[in-house]
Amino acid sequence: MKLVNYSLKHPFAANRIGFILYDKIVDLHATYEEMIATDTKLGGTHVTSNPDAFYALGSKGIELAQKVERYVKDKGATNSFSREEVILHTPIPNPSKIICIGTNYADHVAEMKGEIPEFPVLFAKFNNALIGPEDTIQKAKLTEKLDYEVELAVVIGERATNVAEADAFDYIAGYTIGNDISARDLQKRTPQWLQGKSLDKSTPVGPWLVTKDEITDPANLTVRSYVNDELRQSSNTENLIFNIPHLISFISNLITLEPGDIILTGTPDGVGLAMDPPKLLHDGDVVRLEIESIGTLTNTVKDER
Amino acid sequence: MKLVNYSLKHPFAANRIGFILYDKIVDLHATYEEMIATDTKLGGTHVTSNPDAFYALGSKGIELAQKVERYVKDKGATNSFSREEVILHTPIPNPSKIICIGTNYADHVAEMKGEIPEFPVLFAKFNNALIGPEDTIQKAKLTEKLDYEVELAVVIGERATNVAEADAFDYIAGYTIGNDISARDLQKRTPQWLQGKSLDKSTPVGPWLVTKDEITDPANLTVRSYVNDELRQSSNTENLIFNIPHLISFISNLITLEPGDIILTGTPDGVGLAMDPPKLLHDGDVVRLEIESIGTLTNTVKDER
Repeated sequence: MKLVNYSLKHPFAANRIGFILYDKIVDLHATYEEMIATDTKLGGTHVTSNPDAFYALGSKGIELAQKVERYVKDKGATNSFSREEVILHTPIPNPSKIICIGTNYADHVAEMKGEIPEFPVLFAKFNNALIGPEDTIQKAKLTEKLDYEVELAVVIGERATNVAEADAFDYIAGYTIGNDISARDLQKRTPQWLQGKSLDKSTPVGPWLVTKDEITDPANLTVRSYVNDELRQSSNTENLIFNIPHLISFISNLITLEPGDIILTGTPDGVGLAMDPPKLLHDGDVVRLEIESIGTLTNTVKDER
Repeated sequence: MKLVNYSLKHPFAANRIGFILYDKIVDLHATYEEMIATDTKLGGTHVTSNPDAFYALGSKGIELAQKVERYVKDKGATNSFSREEVILHTPIPNPSKIICIGTNYADHVAEMKGEIPEFPVLFAKFNNALIGPEDTIQKAKLTEKLDYEVELAVVIGERATNVAEADAFDYIAGYTIGNDISARDLQKRTPQWLQGKSLDKSTPVGPWLVTKDEITDPANLTVRSYVNDELRQSSNTENLIFNIPHLISFISNLITLEPGDIILTGTPDGVGLAMDPPKLLHDGDVVRLEIESIGTLTNTVKDER
């Protein structure tokens, strides 16, 4: 199922957890309350409407959402809205961590004149950077070299410590798309990349979370990015140097992962900086990312100046 | 004043915000409720007992705490406890960001054979790493080279975006001590340091937050670390390459800072890795950090194996 963080287009509208079914956005909390009212076996349990609180429930929350989806398929939806009636926000607005993997596609390592890493390269973004599918990418005044990076994003579903590769998928809630927007000039002016990677309102993640049951093989998904309809990156997650089970095992042996945490798994070749001449992002540019079985994430760049 | 995050030594005791006065830990919420009951002018306002929620109030919360402290100095404390009755926890348990400054003392840059940076070097820790003054430093199974780093920690008091250096102190809540524990082998096995800097339960911060009014010159504080009573680091914050106003201005022009965010300002020379032969941390080692006008932060290392 496709889980969304949405709000109605009213003043002071709350961000609520919902899901997409038959082109409608169905409200999870309101629909579950309807189920409770008609099914005495469910009496006493409730589910939060708040996206952060929902993801904190981990797999239990997602199982409950899947139960609600089955109910709606059977009975229809009372509490649902058309796409035009809602705003979609980034699916998990306040993860406890955003961990990014650097240099995780061989072709990208080559274009950046790097070396194939012996271990996964981990770096961080903070939540100040997160934006959703209807937001603009803020190009900060301080950068002249803003760049795009399409990435498969893995969302954690259970607290994960010292996880074995064989068990890694048990700890995943689902997948979404991330644009690891990078200010190359700021990223490279010191040896640590953080200052070029976590600019305010720079990093689109979304448009929804696709639960893991819908993606049979996350190691075989086409991954593409376009700028103003020009194809820039085109690869497949089969080309990841360190695959998803390896990353979850590797990270969880260092850092405990919590439900809702986001792992951006790295980007393939074709970034703007590596083109000859470089093709970086400017005011008004439209960046469209596509990942097979997930969907499309499109954002426009807005220069702060 | 010295603000603490404390709990009583009872089962399921809550973490609460308090302050230290005359060697007692005074509960902020309970004392303020007492003030409300006797002063009709305060009627209707309340203050949270929760440390994270308290720091989210920013300077307003601290001003209120100072009012409570004046009340207690005048009337005495009903809701107070001896040091033995409480456990002290890390003062701000869930900041939205922990931003660390690398290579910010020239002598440390030299001992690590680095270069004086042209810009502040920023890197991240996540909250999984945070521990308090009574916790043990967890030495993860994966590291053989755990090291200490005493650092002045700045805690943000107001949301800060594009702050000018001249205004930087307006955005500070206060100061505490941080031990930027670093697994040198993990830190250096990839170009990005995160994986050696954010190990679970590795990073002591505390023992309390000293409000900024008590520290007249944060650019002139002695900074020392000891391992098993042997002096290892001894410097002064006057030796910071990038001082506190510069750091707050620099960071806030890239990344919006929120109340409760922690900036670890960098460590002077004398780290264990740079000694000949290296003197790294092992099970049972006691690391004591001292910063003038703040206090002492002492933690014991516990090897996970």
